[in-house]
Amino acid sequence: MKYDICFLGAGSFGTSLSVMLASHGKKIILWDRNEELVNSINLKRKNSRYLKEVNIPKLVDASCDLEYVIKEAAYIVISVPSRIVRDMCRKISDFKLNDRVIINIAKGIEEVTGKRLSEVIQEELPHNKVVVLSGPSHAEEVAKNIPTTVVAASDDMEAAKSVQDMFMTDRFRVYTNSDVIGVEIGGAVKNIIALAAGICDGIGYGDNSKAALMTRGINEITRIGIKLGGKKETFSGLTGIGDLIVTCTSMHSRNRRAGILIGQGKSKEEAVNEVGMVVEGIWACKAFYELKSKLKVQMPITDALYKVLFENKDARQAVYELMTREKKDENS
Amino acid sequence: MKYDICFLGAGSFGTSLSVMLASHGKKIILWDRNEELVNSINLKRKNSRYLKEVNIPKLVDASCDLEYVIKEAAYIVISVPSRIVRDMCRKISDFKLNDRVIINIAKGIEEVTGKRLSEVIQEELPHNKVVVLSGPSHAEEVAKNIPTTVVAASDDMEAAKSVQDMFMTDRFRVYTNSDVIGVEIGGAVKNIIALAAGICDGIGYGDNSKAALMTRGINEITRIGIKLGGKKETFSGLTGIGDLIVTCTSMHSRNRRAGILIGQGKSKEEAVNEVGMVVEGIWACKAFYELKSKLKVQMPITDALYKVLFENKDARQAVYELMTREKKDENS
Repeated sequence: MKYDICFLGAGSFGTSLSVMLASHGKKIILWDRNEELVNSINLKRKNSRYLKEVNIPKLVDASCDLEYVIKEAAYIVISVPSRIVRDMCRKISDFKLNDRVIINIAKGIEEVTGKRLSEVIQEELPHNKVVVLSGPSHAEEVAKNIPTTVVAASDDMEAAKSVQDMFMTDRFRVYTNSDVIGVEIGGAVKNIIALAAGICDGIGYGDNSKAALMTRGINEITRIGIKLGGKKETFSGLTGIGDLIVTCTSMHSRNRRAGILIGQGKSKEEAVNEVGMVVEGIWACKAFYELKSKLKVQMPITDALYKVLFENKDARQAVYELMTREKKDENS
Repeated sequence: MKYDICFLGAGSFGTSLSVMLASHGKKIILWDRNEELVNSINLKRKNSRYLKEVNIPKLVDASCDLEYVIKEAAYIVISVPSRIVRDMCRKISDFKLNDRVIINIAKGIEEVTGKRLSEVIQEELPHNKVVVLSGPSHAEEVAKNIPTTVVAASDDMEAAKSVQDMFMTDRFRVYTNSDVIGVEIGGAVKNIIALAAGICDGIGYGDNSKAALMTRGINEITRIGIKLGGKKETFSGLTGIGDLIVTCTSMHSRNRRAGILIGQGKSKEEAVNEVGMVVEGIWACKAFYELKSKLKVQMPITDALYKVLFENKDARQAVYELMTREKKDENS
């Protein structure tokens, strides 16, 4: 095989990991269906759509030929938006490469089925080992080699450790974790909280208000996560609190930026257009709204956001109600 | 009695609470030993040292006469820096006002004894009920009536509830909590983590790095807090994660600002001078460094910060070592 790792989808996170790994000597190939983007990477050493200012090292190739890409790479990273993950896996399954470790970096849950993405992947690729890579890792900073820590989670610890070995550098620390459910639920729900936190910022509320929202947010993530089978300690770790913090406070977060625009009075369509990328939190909100109703888990922030996004509720009113819910004792 | 509440010490948090409470109809008196500051409040309706841009309502009086102030107020708030809390309580004890509820808003632990501030207060005022008010509440935002949530913690739930009733408004939510230890340890240790987070920012590391540090930080707070008798869930609440988030991410945080200056290469003395206010995290670091050594609790961030602050270790090197400690599995 000519490459260590292939990335299916040249979005911002996939591109940033490629740049970081290639700058540490790994041979990478990016697949994307967009021919112009592929040419831009190969010829101009730039991704024409994401992270435009980043120079892409010579050790990164790009191609539109899916068969070639996956056959020539030892590790396959799924880096498409969550809604395309199943389709992507169906395409891969045609080639019957059962020995490949599949690494998922997409975050969210499947809207129609409410399934976690590793479940979706495993359904379509039942013979492959699946590892989830998640944690506080904005693409913009990963590409710049800013110290970053993530978690490689898998039911199969051997697979998780091999991904740890393949991806770890002195600026990109990878920890293993066997709690796939906890890691994935944290990664999906934090986008909902980040959208809500952005709305809070967009309205003009301060750091005190947002900290309160984030505190309730991590409790909401923990509640649904445990109900779905995750371990409590995972939600206190890098893929829980860590990812929540970075997503709610950084301007790199597209979910937060979309929230800010909605808080300033724009519609969700306008906000998505202006952010110019997929806003996973919107779809996660819809999916978890249905899931928590079915499972009877309290998710007040998800509830409030759903009403703003899908029932035209005034954002200011929704946040106000959220901040002033009756609650007398902190632990009651 | 002429006043609902007196504040002993016209610092920024005490002043902001006074402004917020007076704007909701409460009668307030501020005590401070600084005569110029007292005159500035009474005559110019401005605190000449802190929150200078804030207008102080007519319902706030100020005085240098401690006996008058505490005799005329139903609730006594301790709002001096943590190192002066014991002295302040000794002065109060002379007047034998055993029926007054004492509310502490100072954060930290007593350097010499390692005791929590409510313990110090209770030692000096054994007949009074003590309530701790804590949570993500930057003074600058409280004074502007930005939605804020805090916790009133006490062994005596009746006292906690009376403080909740006295302080709660539609923009300032007060929850009760019986876990005084957890609330106080969270409030003290978060200043250590905020200093370290500021150093991380000052060096030029990004949001990914800081989120990792904060995640480890909350785990460090929880570890020492449980060892000292706090409840685990308190550290996931407003006075734990909530206060940590606001202190590590807001420019209002003097601990974070001091850290940024140290990360940029300044000495702790230069940093303190430039911030111009007491930086509680420096003293908390010293106190908890000794306490954790005695109790044999792992506090790697406190360790690293201690070396930077008191043993002239290079900040960049300390953070680098902290980020790259050997750790293979997230939960090991």
